[in-house]
Amino acid sequence: MSASLPIKGHVFTIVGGASLVGSATAEHLLAEGAAEVRVVDNFAFAGEGAIAHLLGNPRLKVVRADVMRLPELLAATKGSDGVLHLAALMTLNMDRDAWTGLDVNIRGVQNGLEAARVNGVKKFVFASSNAVYGYGPGIKGELVEGTPFHSAGAPPAAILYGATKIIGEQLCRDYYRKHGLDYVVLRYSTVYGERQHYRAANALYIIETYDAVRAGRPPKVFGDGSETKHFVYVGDLARANAAAFSSGATDVAVNTSGPEPISTLELVRLVTDIAGGGPEPEFEGETPGKVRLTSGGAFEIVHKEAGRAIGWEPKVGMREGLTRLIQWLEAERAKNAA
Amino acid sequence: MSASLPIKGHVFTIVGGASLVGSATAEHLLAEGAAEVRVVDNFAFAGEGAIAHLLGNPRLKVVRADVMRLPELLAATKGSDGVLHLAALMTLNMDRDAWTGLDVNIRGVQNGLEAARVNGVKKFVFASSNAVYGYGPGIKGELVEGTPFHSAGAPPAAILYGATKIIGEQLCRDYYRKHGLDYVVLRYSTVYGERQHYRAANALYIIETYDAVRAGRPPKVFGDGSETKHFVYVGDLARANAAAFSSGATDVAVNTSGPEPISTLELVRLVTDIAGGGPEPEFEGETPGKVRLTSGGAFEIVHKEAGRAIGWEPKVGMREGLTRLIQWLEAERAKNAA
Repeated sequence: MSASLPIKGHVFTIVGGASLVGSATAEHLLAEGAAEVRVVDNFAFAGEGAIAHLLGNPRLKVVRADVMRLPELLAATKGSDGVLHLAALMTLNMDRDAWTGLDVNIRGVQNGLEAARVNGVKKFVFASSNAVYGYGPGIKGELVEGTPFHSAGAPPAAILYGATKIIGEQLCRDYYRKHGLDYVVLRYSTVYGERQHYRAANALYIIETYDAVRAGRPPKVFGDGSETKHFVYVGDLARANAAAFSSGATDVAVNTSGPEPISTLELVRLVTDIAGGGPEPEFEGETPGKVRLTSGGAFEIVHKEAGRAIGWEPKVGMREGLTRLIQWLEAERAKNAA
Repeated sequence: MSASLPIKGHVFTIVGGASLVGSATAEHLLAEGAAEVRVVDNFAFAGEGAIAHLLGNPRLKVVRADVMRLPELLAATKGSDGVLHLAALMTLNMDRDAWTGLDVNIRGVQNGLEAARVNGVKKFVFASSNAVYGYGPGIKGELVEGTPFHSAGAPPAAILYGATKIIGEQLCRDYYRKHGLDYVVLRYSTVYGERQHYRAANALYIIETYDAVRAGRPPKVFGDGSETKHFVYVGDLARANAAAFSSGATDVAVNTSGPEPISTLELVRLVTDIAGGGPEPEFEGETPGKVRLTSGGAFEIVHKEAGRAIGWEPKVGMREGLTRLIQWLEAERAKNAA
């Protein structure tokens, strides 16, 4: 039996929806003809600003609820055909408050799955992360779905975050095995794009670089700039989420990364170029006490399995995606200044 | 500054102490001259039977408390110099009840660390597991402290258990970094020995094998019997726990495994031999639905780092340890029959 859940005519709930990925996915699902899209959030990290551009749509519903309160999730997901579970604390917040981070990233997922089970939800899509491959010198070469979790040499909060995503994935497997709840796990790369927030260590680096260049300050590059980053554009992820629902795939976890990785130095040069030029980058060492997610060498997050399982591949390359992000950033700032 | 906490004259609290490792460690710490040993347990899995042989000792104190209730841990660890944190659900119970398992193995450790911090505990020893290296075909060769976590092909509950131990270790690192709480993480191999309980999948296999042989039934061997197991004798672990306190080591995680690994077939032959002979083993395939912790090939859990960090090495080999376990088992059964 196919686990396909077509978008058109169905009801979707996005838990943690007032977010970068949530708002883009809500927009995409509405455009694809979803009967209703519910954005569920506790608004701890975002106001309604993240979804302001969608609020006029009569098929969009905003629900204030917290993943730590099962009754609220039971109410929020009642009548839903599909649930996309995004709600999580990322590494920087995990470092500040591991108690809340472990609660939200683990019990929050259990509550999400339990609510989906009780309400007979047809398909659950869980936002995992390439953090399940870990950090540090062990990260190199091709990262595929069977790559183990490397943690030697990584900071505690990064390991905690990665481990919570591993747990979230296994909770999905457990609900599938014990209760037959169809699911797809997507392991997001670092997301960037319009409506980007300021909580993700790697994505924040793009904005810091742009701001430095714009102000005529040399952008900072750590080490020799050869360190790899592998981003994914938010619009590509919105399509991946929709494909996870509409494809027949179930009980599978796949990488969703952008077309190709980029070195830190290439990234800085690209941002400088899009900004219309600027000072040469400044190479520097570590900042003590700052949580940075370093990798040992060149790596690539391989997304071929997503092609096979859910028929998805990324379309937006770094130049195009960064251009869109920077245009949005400038438009926002102009609006705020006005 | 050395993080050494001598045993003699100091107060130790063993959280989850009414257990195989807890009772052996309490006995060892008392023998080494500890001023007081507190066995803290919620007695969810064991009665006072596990520590019955120690109850006459005026330096032993039994405290009923639950790791999920911080106030109870705050009271239980007040005035303690050292805390050994054992309380955990293992894989079989994690499979039955992931909600309690994740609570106890994660929030329970946070509560333990927080109580230790508030009460000015000098050293925290955390019982981790070789489960931090995972399961499945990725497990082969030498498993050292930097080996990554393999999970491809493993059952959900096993991965959940391993991930909670990874998280527990990182919570220790986080408390050390943020609050200066000295700690040592010991990654226990599968423990066996006198007062063994019936909750650990691999250790249970020893008893099942012995019972089959004793009853004249052929013991069962999965696959071709070449699968490795690497046990550690409980008395060796009691010494490792004491060494973790008394050594100057801090902020370190080390393997504590027995002298050498053993194949399943060798194990069955050894148990049969100690039992005085019995039928030839029966080779069989998988039992559907049963949680088994398989490994892909021959592996060895290397404990050299424990020698360097805490001056410990295992002393009791499989023949000696199994003989002691079986003698205890027979004595218990004779006592119960009488």
